[in-house]
Amino acid sequence: MNDMLKVGILGASGYTGSELVRLLARHPHVEIIAMTAERHAGKRMVDVFPQFRGRELPLLMKVDEVDWRRADFVFCCLPHGTTQEIIAGLPHSARIVDLSADFRLENPETYAAWYGHAHKALELQKEAVYGLTELNRQAVKTARLVANPGCYPACTLLPLAPLLQAGLITPQGIVVDAKTGVSGAGRSLKEGSLYAEVAEGFHAYGVAHHRHAPEIEQELTKQAKEDILLSFTPHLVPMNRGMMATSYVTLKDGITATDLHAHLSKTYAGEPFIRLLPEGQTPQTRHVKGSNYCDIGVVADRVPGRAIVISVIDNLVKGSSGLAVQNMNVMMGYAETTALEQEPMFP
Amino acid sequence: MNDMLKVGILGASGYTGSELVRLLARHPHVEIIAMTAERHAGKRMVDVFPQFRGRELPLLMKVDEVDWRRADFVFCCLPHGTTQEIIAGLPHSARIVDLSADFRLENPETYAAWYGHAHKALELQKEAVYGLTELNRQAVKTARLVANPGCYPACTLLPLAPLLQAGLITPQGIVVDAKTGVSGAGRSLKEGSLYAEVAEGFHAYGVAHHRHAPEIEQELTKQAKEDILLSFTPHLVPMNRGMMATSYVTLKDGITATDLHAHLSKTYAGEPFIRLLPEGQTPQTRHVKGSNYCDIGVVADRVPGRAIVISVIDNLVKGSSGLAVQNMNVMMGYAETTALEQEPMFP
Amino acid sequence: MNDMLKVGILGASGYTGSELVRLLARHPHVEIIAMTAERHAGKRMVDVFPQFRGRELPLLMKVDEVDWRRADFVFCCLPHGTTQEIIAGLPHSARIVDLSADFRLENPETYAAWYGHAHKALELQKEAVYGLTELNRQAVKTARLVANPGCYPACTLLPLAPLLQAGLITPQGIVVDAKTGVSGAGRSLKEGSLYAEVAEGFHAYGVAHHRHAPEIEQELTKQAKEDILLSFTPHLVPMNRGMMATSYVTLKDGITATDLHAHLSKTYAGEPFIRLLPEGQTPQTRHVKGSNYCDIGVVADRVPGRAIVISVIDNLVKGSSGLAVQNMNVMMGYAETTALEQEPMFP
Amino acid sequence: MNDMLKVGILGASGYTGSELVRLLARHPHVEIIAMTAERHAGKRMVDVFPQFRGRELPLLMKVDEVDWRRADFVFCCLPHGTTQEIIAGLPHSARIVDLSADFRLENPETYAAWYGHAHKALELQKEAVYGLTELNRQAVKTARLVANPGCYPACTLLPLAPLLQAGLITPQGIVVDAKTGVSGAGRSLKEGSLYAEVAEGFHAYGVAHHRHAPEIEQELTKQAKEDILLSFTPHLVPMNRGMMATSYVTLKDGITATDLHAHLSKTYAGEPFIRLLPEGQTPQTRHVKGSNYCDIGVVADRVPGRAIVISVIDNLVKGSSGLAVQNMNVMMGYAETTALEQEPMFP
Repeated sequence: MNDMLKVGILGASGYTGSELVRLLARHPHVEIIAMTAERHAGKRMVDVFPQFRGRELPLLMKVDEVDWRRADFVFCCLPHGTTQEIIAGLPHSARIVDLSADFRLENPETYAAWYGHAHKALELQKEAVYGLTELNRQAVKTARLVANPGCYPACTLLPLAPLLQAGLITPQGIVVDAKTGVSGAGRSLKEGSLYAEVAEGFHAYGVAHHRHAPEIEQELTKQAKEDILLSFTPHLVPMNRGMMATSYVTLKDGITATDLHAHLSKTYAGEPFIRLLPEGQTPQTRHVKGSNYCDIGVVADRVPGRAIVISVIDNLVKGSSGLAVQNMNVMMGYAETTALEQEPMFP
Repeated sequence: MNDMLKVGILGASGYTGSELVRLLARHPHVEIIAMTAERHAGKRMVDVFPQFRGRELPLLMKVDEVDWRRADFVFCCLPHGTTQEIIAGLPHSARIVDLSADFRLENPETYAAWYGHAHKALELQKEAVYGLTELNRQAVKTARLVANPGCYPACTLLPLAPLLQAGLITPQGIVVDAKTGVSGAGRSLKEGSLYAEVAEGFHAYGVAHHRHAPEIEQELTKQAKEDILLSFTPHLVPMNRGMMATSYVTLKDGITATDLHAHLSKTYAGEPFIRLLPEGQTPQTRHVKGSNYCDIGVVADRVPGRAIVISVIDNLVKGSSGLAVQNMNVMMGYAETTALEQEPMFP
Repeated sequence: MNDMLKVGILGASGYTGSELVRLLARHPHVEIIAMTAERHAGKRMVDVFPQFRGRELPLLMKVDEVDWRRADFVFCCLPHGTTQEIIAGLPHSARIVDLSADFRLENPETYAAWYGHAHKALELQKEAVYGLTELNRQAVKTARLVANPGCYPACTLLPLAPLLQAGLITPQGIVVDAKTGVSGAGRSLKEGSLYAEVAEGFHAYGVAHHRHAPEIEQELTKQAKEDILLSFTPHLVPMNRGMMATSYVTLKDGITATDLHAHLSKTYAGEPFIRLLPEGQTPQTRHVKGSNYCDIGVVADRVPGRAIVISVIDNLVKGSSGLAVQNMNVMMGYAETTALEQEPMFP
Repeated sequence: MNDMLKVGILGASGYTGSELVRLLARHPHVEIIAMTAERHAGKRMVDVFPQFRGRELPLLMKVDEVDWRRADFVFCCLPHGTTQEIIAGLPHSARIVDLSADFRLENPETYAAWYGHAHKALELQKEAVYGLTELNRQAVKTARLVANPGCYPACTLLPLAPLLQAGLITPQGIVVDAKTGVSGAGRSLKEGSLYAEVAEGFHAYGVAHHRHAPEIEQELTKQAKEDILLSFTPHLVPMNRGMMATSYVTLKDGITATDLHAHLSKTYAGEPFIRLLPEGQTPQTRHVKGSNYCDIGVVADRVPGRAIVISVIDNLVKGSSGLAVQNMNVMMGYAETTALEQEPMFP
């Protein structure tokens, strides 16, 4: 076990934390040596997530009870805002993937505007690498601190970034109509997350002011080399897992949906986690459930000069913990698919 | 009972048929005198829909077993294509609301292009009135044959038609991202309607070729006095009932989302079934479930010059059988809300 | 409006409160004059339950802000334990249906043992009438305070009480395996009520120690004239509404399942809300959803001398608010079905 | 690849077939060389189950198009009744796990009585070994043909068989109240499997005549050495996966629930797929989802001399395809947990 990577998980009692445990359980190079959960400190993981009965795991502890010098690698699954100071306090020897929103926005003013307070770790922010692996693999390799993308950004950027980068679609007028399962809201107690408030109904939320919009815009702007402002509307689907982005785009003159499809096909050839459907076919969230896949479909719209691009992920895997493990694999030089090979689970 | 309206239901063994029975059960002026169901002829309704145990209803019969001269009024819930000839065969004395798609498209060529065969009752088509009551009440009053709108058109037209009619939004570039519950697919046996194929997942279908697109476009074109071509994408939500249209629109110069809201407020003042939310708030399907309401919300987009308009209905009520009863009430001179007053059922 | 019954609702911001509003909205003799909600005092009902948009309702108030002398009738939907003192403080002129557990157990020691504290209104307890209308209609008629049964007791007692009363089944060895939808847990914030903790899963809870067991036993004991001790296991079904009791009973010598069926048929002939299925058929919760029906099925077991009796209700209607309205109708001399006639809503 | 086990799957287009593919995808010793699907012959698996996009799999073929001499091992996922002759036609060199009901009932008369026709392969029936691995591991090891248990029997026998074998509970009066997710009904088109007929509702089915009852009774009778007749009632839960058996048992004189717990603890010590909860705790289906675990809880009933035993499995894994792979592992001498180590997926 001497050559095992010693991993700590900050915030292990939420769904992204438990999903990390699920995935890392099969990672041949990883040993989980610490897990924190402030409210549940002292409990065993099985008392918080009974699915792990029988698995050996460290006791849940408070953040400041852990000797972080023992950790080679840390996943941080804490709520945004609380994360900056805790990460700043970790030993510099540890490499980190942060699953919160704290280090995603490069511009501190944008952060302050959308999150309501000044950023508390500006030096770290400068160092952080935006960890959408497929788009940023080289930088992730050598990063000490990776900001794991939000679920909506991961789902939206994977299809749109290459199209903007190649100048195939116009930066103006992009509409992203997005839908997520309920686990994205986490395990905290909110009336809107109650079963009876979610089942047998559908609604939009955060219309025109969801915090993932500036994150998507930041990354698309880099690709387009032009300021991007999106119409972005998230909706809540009565299901546990799954996320879809239905993106309506305007084609540059002379470009067709077939060109978009061909470019994505070329861009993502060889990518283990991107599956492009034949042109005209569209993906379903259920066919990526539990897996690290992002499935993408491209369809020519009936409106001339427009196309519809649909992408789906499992919000807890490719939209969060799976992507985090993928980033860890890249950072540590492991095969990128390690512990992420399992098939989607349908039905 | 002499002054009761004698009503027949063609196709009573599907969900729109049973929903009509549910609603008409409380209608003080209606007596159901015939119900047809080819495959179930000879059975009692309770054997097909056990929720009606204890209610007196006619036996299910085949269409040609019924003496239609007894019927004052007929609801037709048959699949499209089969309906034209059957309605053509009804006595002229009966007034009719057809819930199929057969008489919605005014242009026979459009019908043929989207439904794959020539229209078989062109004279009736000319006579038919498009029955979105709020937009077409005067014509409905005197119509003999009302074409009940599709669910997506009902949900989409109620917010958008007044805005186009008043010239507040541009006819170009409208994106309608729509979502429906599963009952809209009916009770017929399709793999895609199986529980295990629907639950815990989300997908788009009919992308860029759904048959409700030309219907919406026909009606919006009338309002805009200009040809409308939509980006329209329907999605399937794992829930029984409910429908939402998230519409992205471009404001005419100088117009704001507040203007849209004010215009809808004025247009729909006094309408019993349209509930406009305060500007900036958005509706949820669960809050109209079981009712004939259409709830509408208007939000200014972050993209300057654009707005997001969200409308929700119960697809089986305001999107189908409830709207049909509303049309009947108008045609027969009953109070328009008769049998449609029940509150939404949440949760 | 002078002859309208002036009704107050204590605890209107939970699901039983909103269900009362839904049902009473169509009651021709009722005017809601006060609704309380401690946490939401000062808000409009539409801000707490948006399905009521457009309906005129009193503002939500705190209990002690209401002038209760104005109320002819009070429904109490408060959590158990808090209810006793509040009801004791109401003017004696008001008649009351209490939907909490506070007045259901006649023996104060049983109450203290199961609810963890001494009963605080013993005089009221003596006066209270157990309000399972079908079994206790005469006493309900003249009661000032009716203790509305728990949902599991309502669902279980309706089929079993007549069978024990008639001596057709043995008091020993009854197994009641019960299942409920999630709305029964109310709107309070509990991790176990979160969508992601309920959907796509099934579990038992309160095994061998659920508080409805002594309530069922108390009422069955009255019928059997012999102490009854039950095996009672409730389970949580991932659905909003609906409740089923699957009861396994031992037949007295010489008695058959057909005798059980015949006796229930005779007992409940003429009861508007009890629907007995043909022998051998079993009911589904979806066919009573939204209605005040209790559907009952009786099947002979393969094990000689045993039968299986299955009963279903909507836990928020016949298991709670609908039964409360039924009791009010009986108490006030209105037609018993008033405001409770609506059809079940399926799907 | 020479030492890979060459595996064929008969009936790969149903849910048990796709679940086998999901599990075997990670099996280091297995190569799938043939998959059949009569209706879909000629298609690729990805066209029938899009979750397998990107995975190399044989084309779907008809049964008689396959050269079965190439197969070392065959999983048979065909509907019962069709299976007997097809398996009789396979080369004797192939070892077989049959997931249908065809070889589970040892008594041909019982088979004929419950399945409506005489058994067509009596010699094979004599040879077949009942494959509940934990109870029958030695016989499975050397079997050529293993009859994979039904899902309800697997879930019920695992807790009850050891208790009867040890004489801790009485063979009389056992009540098994069972619940399953919808995937157990398979992918065939039945009205009762439609989303709108399953969601938001709950019902029992096959009451007192489900075909899994005689299978459970056969195996329990072997353990008890006394004829067992069960009260067995299956119910349908609106969820995709998961199964629970709530078993009500009578303790032999002097025996307590603690004794039951202790005996199960001892019996299943070292079993990799059986997880016994602490006494008094009860399991949830969601905590075994996607895994091969059977979780078991034991609770003392309030009724003296009785206990409640609750067991849960994923019906598609431990109740079907996972158990089949476990049997294959035992038959071939692989580590029993191979390809079955993945964690449950919650939420």
